[in-house]
Amino acid sequence: MTRIRFALAQLNPIVGDITGNSLAILAAVADSYARGARVIVTPEMSITGYPVDDLASSIDFIRQSDAGVRSLARRIASDGFGDAVVIVGYLSEAAETDFGGARAHNSLAVLHNGHIVATYAKRHLPNYSVFDEERVFVPGTGTLVLDLGGVTTGFLICEDLWRSDGPVAELAARDLDAVVVINASPFDTAKDESRFPLLTTRAAEFDATLVYVNAVGGQDDLVFDGDSSVLDSTGVTLLRAVRFEPATVLIDIPGSGKSSKGIELAEPTDVITPTVQNDLPDLEAIWEALVLGVRDYATKNGFPSIVLGLSGGIDSAVCAVIAADAVGAHRVFGVSMPSQYSSDGSKDDARELANTLGCHFDVQPIAELVTPFETQLGLTGVAAENIQARARGMILMSLSNQHGHLVLTTGNKSEVAVGYSTMYGDTVGGFAPLKDVFKTVVWDLARWRNTTATTRGEKPPIPVNSISKAPSAELRPDQIDQDSLPPYDVLDAILEQLVNHRHSIDAVVSAGHDRATVERIAALVAGSEWKRRQGAIGPRISRMAFGRERRLPITVRHSPELS
Amino acid sequence: MTRIRFALAQLNPIVGDITGNSLAILAAVADSYARGARVIVTPEMSITGYPVDDLASSIDFIRQSDAGVRSLARRIASDGFGDAVVIVGYLSEAAETDFGGARAHNSLAVLHNGHIVATYAKRHLPNYSVFDEERVFVPGTGTLVLDLGGVTTGFLICEDLWRSDGPVAELAARDLDAVVVINASPFDTAKDESRFPLLTTRAAEFDATLVYVNAVGGQDDLVFDGDSSVLDSTGVTLLRAVRFEPATVLIDIPGSGKSSKGIELAEPTDVITPTVQNDLPDLEAIWEALVLGVRDYATKNGFPSIVLGLSGGIDSAVCAVIAADAVGAHRVFGVSMPSQYSSDGSKDDARELANTLGCHFDVQPIAELVTPFETQLGLTGVAAENIQARARGMILMSLSNQHGHLVLTTGNKSEVAVGYSTMYGDTVGGFAPLKDVFKTVVWDLARWRNTTATTRGEKPPIPVNSISKAPSAELRPDQIDQDSLPPYDVLDAILEQLVNHRHSIDAVVSAGHDRATVERIAALVAGSEWKRRQGAIGPRISRMAFGRERRLPITVRHSPELS
Repeated sequence: MTRIRFALAQLNPIVGDITGNSLAILAAVADSYARGARVIVTPEMSITGYPVDDLASSIDFIRQSDAGVRSLARRIASDGFGDAVVIVGYLSEAAETDFGGARAHNSLAVLHNGHIVATYAKRHLPNYSVFDEERVFVPGTGTLVLDLGGVTTGFLICEDLWRSDGPVAELAARDLDAVVVINASPFDTAKDESRFPLLTTRAAEFDATLVYVNAVGGQDDLVFDGDSSVLDSTGVTLLRAVRFEPATVLIDIPGSGKSSKGIELAEPTDVITPTVQNDLPDLEAIWEALVLGVRDYATKNGFPSIVLGLSGGIDSAVCAVIAADAVGAHRVFGVSMPSQYSSDGSKDDARELANTLGCHFDVQPIAELVTPFETQLGLTGVAAENIQARARGMILMSLSNQHGHLVLTTGNKSEVAVGYSTMYGDTVGGFAPLKDVFKTVVWDLARWRNTTATTRGEKPPIPVNSISKAPSAELRPDQIDQDSLPPYDVLDAILEQLVNHRHSIDAVVSAGHDRATVERIAALVAGSEWKRRQGAIGPRISRMAFGRERRLPITVRHSPELS
Repeated sequence: MTRIRFALAQLNPIVGDITGNSLAILAAVADSYARGARVIVTPEMSITGYPVDDLASSIDFIRQSDAGVRSLARRIASDGFGDAVVIVGYLSEAAETDFGGARAHNSLAVLHNGHIVATYAKRHLPNYSVFDEERVFVPGTGTLVLDLGGVTTGFLICEDLWRSDGPVAELAARDLDAVVVINASPFDTAKDESRFPLLTTRAAEFDATLVYVNAVGGQDDLVFDGDSSVLDSTGVTLLRAVRFEPATVLIDIPGSGKSSKGIELAEPTDVITPTVQNDLPDLEAIWEALVLGVRDYATKNGFPSIVLGLSGGIDSAVCAVIAADAVGAHRVFGVSMPSQYSSDGSKDDARELANTLGCHFDVQPIAELVTPFETQLGLTGVAAENIQARARGMILMSLSNQHGHLVLTTGNKSEVAVGYSTMYGDTVGGFAPLKDVFKTVVWDLARWRNTTATTRGEKPPIPVNSISKAPSAELRPDQIDQDSLPPYDVLDAILEQLVNHRHSIDAVVSAGHDRATVERIAALVAGSEWKRRQGAIGPRISRMAFGRERRLPITVRHSPELS
């Protein structure tokens, strides 16, 4: 029997930043080595970031990745940690090229004594949902099992674990002490419900300790939630890392003893108690995902600050609080852009929010900007309404041009689904925090965030009036959203089925909804695809986010059956 | 020996329009049957349109497709053509579901006497370039060979033909008279160079007559060019259909004789000479592709008319002529939107273009729209320049809102590549005709189109001055594009290598370009990904179009190597 200390380095890489990602790995190695760890495991593609998309077909990038891993191995050794084993994820050149162009593996390298001592290439390549791995990677072959100081350890990469055939079956047939799985597995609200049962099942199949290391951080529209965990073969959770932030957590893993060909590793001289974090309630998990998504989009892309319109409504209020939680209120610039149709209540709510939050606040009335357009072009009706929204978009972009702010666009998933927005107006912006959040959930989040503030002894940031009043675009007198849309609880229930679950109109009607309403909503969804194609990206929290996950034509026509 | 008349029905389906597509097939059947054809071949996915993207995972849509084919078979029979064989492409339900969700085949059905008498499912699924077929389809198994009135015929679907393993090898081992390949193969400028050598090679391998039927038409960012052809086993082109328009063309194909299980078909009683269209010169092919792309985007999406800004520059001039060629000048609305920086020459050129073309023409100066923004927000520099472009975008969208026009955005590939555009300004629009056309090619197209007009005895539509003057955004005094970009011949040569061929910076420098320039261009390309994500779609003409074909992260950071 032996006992080796493993470190789970739950890191937040930036795509393409091989040097920066390597330095983050090096820091985790130094820290955990000092605490006795001799096997340090980092996430899938920890060297390159994930997903790399078509960068995987750049031979230069593949070679930079390979050179980066070799440099890191040498640097780990020269810094005095060469006797540890470090597991990294990277892009490696494939010996054979796939028909169509893929020429890299999604690989894992085992670093020891300054060298790559073993590699494994991912075999199951997900090519559904948000994943395009059959497009960009060549699948690997074979399995990898190593004796790490007496802990006989098998290796897998992410999707490999989710399918029972291939590497899972092959490792299950071996006599293993541990299985290490490196992942870049994006968050969605149902992820935990499927992840932990899977880990439990696999730990039992392997009859081994399961070490699951996941990435953390926002990368464009994906948020990786961490949640790195260790389970024993009976499914007991021995370790669970924090979610939504980087962490390096340790655990001692028992092994059945050394073989003659094993890697020698020092056993720990002390005893540690691994962390087991509690599960997060759903709304808190969503909030943390949105905050991390905004923070990483802003910081990884070098934005010093964030600007957004504050209408007094619930969407902009929630976005402002997310932005403040993400980058600090002192970096958030709220702009009230009232028109003749803006109620005093809305203007007051916007100001109150900014005051409570402590963000910057500016008022830019739009009347004098809009009138010349209306007059010169003779605009009425929808064209006139849209000019108001577009003037606001121009103001925000002008402030961005002048000060370098990231512009947030505040539309929610219900609006994005049915195209309830003005193109080049309220859709203006680089990032859309609520793009995958239905309106009814926006309200839930607002209430949850206010309650959390109260619990912390802080003033609830979102004005009660912004939560309780009837939603309105305020583009004409006494307008409310429900003039042209069903009530949001009905709309969201229909959209949940039509969009998130891809149910047919008939199925949604069978579930109890009015046929005319369902047909109208379905037509609005289909007809606004062109708007979504030109919309900002935003963090995915569902299993059917607009964008990378739901790919439909703009030009499409449905017709009754031929008789 | 026998002889059967085949019809190649080069159709233009609309995605989702199962009834409309079926009626178009029925019309081609009626027409070619009357001319003696007894085997009528339609393109890949002729029932559903192509590409269907994630519609392929809708079980309702799959069943509509299947029901649509059965209805069509019955309708063909009830209309009196049941004794012919009709080949259609459609979406069929797969018995087994792929891990991750695909549940349909990309299939071919053989209709005869009111029934589906045979099917074949595509086996090689392209999942590179613009294709995502491993995402949406389940691959088929087996081959299909039928005796069609004594012509022993094998069947393939598109990508099947491009790979030498699997169905190609299996059919080559059979004793066949003909191989029918149904395709939805999108145009690019290099397509003919690879398509005809492949057809020649395969015809020899099969030692059979090769019948290649391709779709035609614009579908979002793809243009299908038709070019349906028949080659004999020695590679001689026996038939070649027109490109870029629908056609139903006939040819008699010899067979070695009937088997007992063959389908009985009437032989033709007359003799026909198949059409062999000439190849198109490159610029003509590109022009036709752009015209078809614009026409089909506008008409399939129900736009009655097109609006675009006419700056007097080359891009807007070429777009206006494309639009007029696509939908007729009487449906094109050109708007001159001069500022204080617009030269008299530019304003005159815009007016001259509109007059020559015969399109509608309106002048909307922007000074009084822009000044209030500049004054209220205190704008200078780039922010002030951008307001001019954004005011123009607002004018065009307002006209679209009032009159239902499709807005064209006129940026070319060189600009789109380096982000030389104002977001929500000159990027505004639903379709971007020149998105995949480098600036130097825009000039070539302008000269080609003017020469063509002269040849036809028409006045050249594009003012000579628009072609010859130095390009300028005219957003500040005496500004020209070359203030901030290298000359376009240099820029395009660099972009061709960096973007279209994915060459590394080092490789481009080795090809003779200045390193600092190449590095600056590469940084501009990487830094403007967010703009492209929010840009309009436009017709693909290259093998590396922005959008569906080139998928890269927005958030990406490249760094020097770790030392």
